[in-house]
Amino acid sequence: MSVAIRRLAVIGVGLIGGSLALALRRAGAVEEVIGCGRRAATLERARELGIIDTTMTIAEAAAAADVVVVCVPLGAMGGVFEAMAGAVGPETVVTDAGSAKAAVIADAEAAFGAVPPWFVPGHPIAGTERSGPEAAFPELYQGRRVILTPAAVTDPAAVARVRAMWEAAGAGVVTMDAAHHDDVLAATSHLPHVLAYALVDALSRWDDRQEIFEFAAGGFRDFTRIASSDPAMWRDICMANRGPLSAALRRYLSELEEVIQRLEAADAAGLEEIFHRARHERERFLELLEGRRAS
Amino acid sequence: MSVAIRRLAVIGVGLIGGSLALALRRAGAVEEVIGCGRRAATLERARELGIIDTTMTIAEAAAAADVVVVCVPLGAMGGVFEAMAGAVGPETVVTDAGSAKAAVIADAEAAFGAVPPWFVPGHPIAGTERSGPEAAFPELYQGRRVILTPAAVTDPAAVARVRAMWEAAGAGVVTMDAAHHDDVLAATSHLPHVLAYALVDALSRWDDRQEIFEFAAGGFRDFTRIASSDPAMWRDICMANRGPLSAALRRYLSELEEVIQRLEAADAAGLEEIFHRARHERERFLELLEGRRAS
Repeated sequence: MSVAIRRLAVIGVGLIGGSLALALRRAGAVEEVIGCGRRAATLERARELGIIDTTMTIAEAAAAADVVVVCVPLGAMGGVFEAMAGAVGPETVVTDAGSAKAAVIADAEAAFGAVPPWFVPGHPIAGTERSGPEAAFPELYQGRRVILTPAAVTDPAAVARVRAMWEAAGAGVVTMDAAHHDDVLAATSHLPHVLAYALVDALSRWDDRQEIFEFAAGGFRDFTRIASSDPAMWRDICMANRGPLSAALRRYLSELEEVIQRLEAADAAGLEEIFHRARHERERFLELLEGRRAS
Repeated sequence: MSVAIRRLAVIGVGLIGGSLALALRRAGAVEEVIGCGRRAATLERARELGIIDTTMTIAEAAAAADVVVVCVPLGAMGGVFEAMAGAVGPETVVTDAGSAKAAVIADAEAAFGAVPPWFVPGHPIAGTERSGPEAAFPELYQGRRVILTPAAVTDPAAVARVRAMWEAAGAGVVTMDAAHHDDVLAATSHLPHVLAYALVDALSRWDDRQEIFEFAAGGFRDFTRIASSDPAMWRDICMANRGPLSAALRRYLSELEEVIQRLEAADAAGLEEIFHRARHERERFLELLEGRRAS
């Protein structure tokens, strides 16, 4: 199948959508990019930065584009789908970049009456702490993973089209069940974010917080880096993936209770066993990460 | 007071002790460095690297040196004190670099019969994931903090001598109560390490661990970096600071339970409040860290 997209519509021209447009342009995989968004100033900035060529309303873009990519915060996803309901062109494929898939599929079902065959739920696993069109850069997806979670009703040709788009942007694409995606992402991304936010918040509520932060060092800085992420975005992600995240948190709580138990029982060997296993597993993870970059 | 140390004894010539010796040499603050350690090969390597000039037994070094710095893992501290008991020279000052102070003071009391006036408990807040003499470098303490926790019986002149030594190595020195040190370090260092180990271990025990690590990204790598630290060293630290660490873990558990509660109640605003406060506090911490480096 041909990768080339005649008209791409990007709804939400920030880091995720903007970087996709820039990557596809650079790859010569798109002819024209339509931008949609709530703020005229952001769209104007995206045009100045060469991310988009033109702007339209969401309904106009859904009618005009071959591929529509919805890159708005999870809390805004339902509203975007409603704005395009009834207007999507007969050949148009719609996909999204939301970090929780079951919630987005439920939003689509609510807005369109049923999960449409031309809708391909997707999630590029990429990002930085920055946001907005200024943060966009064409290399963002290089060597990264994109997970697509098609439903039984999803048109295989639509999936192939979205896959080709992300591959043209430099990403590796895998497909899996939406519920499975949500479990995996709860564990590897949503859980660590919540743990980091909770740690900094907990420390800030202790009596001697000034001193606590005064004596924190580099390890603490790395550990809490993700607690500098956008609070509103992460509120949306946590709410959208509430079930799997809550289950992951409860499993983590049990692990911590086991650690406390070993600590309070002065079970040095038992504690070391956990630390050893963790270090070993992290080394395996780093090898995986290296292998993925090299490939 | 003069900074110059005629004979410095470093017991444990790894990253911490080795870097101190190199920094003092570079500053011209030491004439001769005596190395002590269990492994002849490590001492030989330290001599080749210019960290030490000569080697002695612990008892010989304690008799011969002006300043003795004990840089061994917390679990080995008591044995070192016992090896020098009765041999410490009349003008000799002994200090250590252990990450938990009450436990080291208890070890000193047990070995020497009472906490000696010439013993200055200390903790340089510095380190890397590497260890051994090869890992040592003279800039390790540049702009870092050293906490000294003298007791009521500690000789102020001994404290001044140890303070001058660390300042000559480039560090800023503060003094505080040992129990307070242990609370602060439990919060900022020992707790994050345990949380990171526990996360990687918990994930590795889930059914789909291969996939979980497969889809983890950069945020996860940063968050778990400290889970690559030496398991035996961290077993010792956790055991030595068991009380404060266990209290910190229990406070963190309460915070996590609050997060789960808000999540399960779909309290989006309540969750965002925690995230906002955490991001704000982390920004304050980064400003502190920057200010410290610039000063």
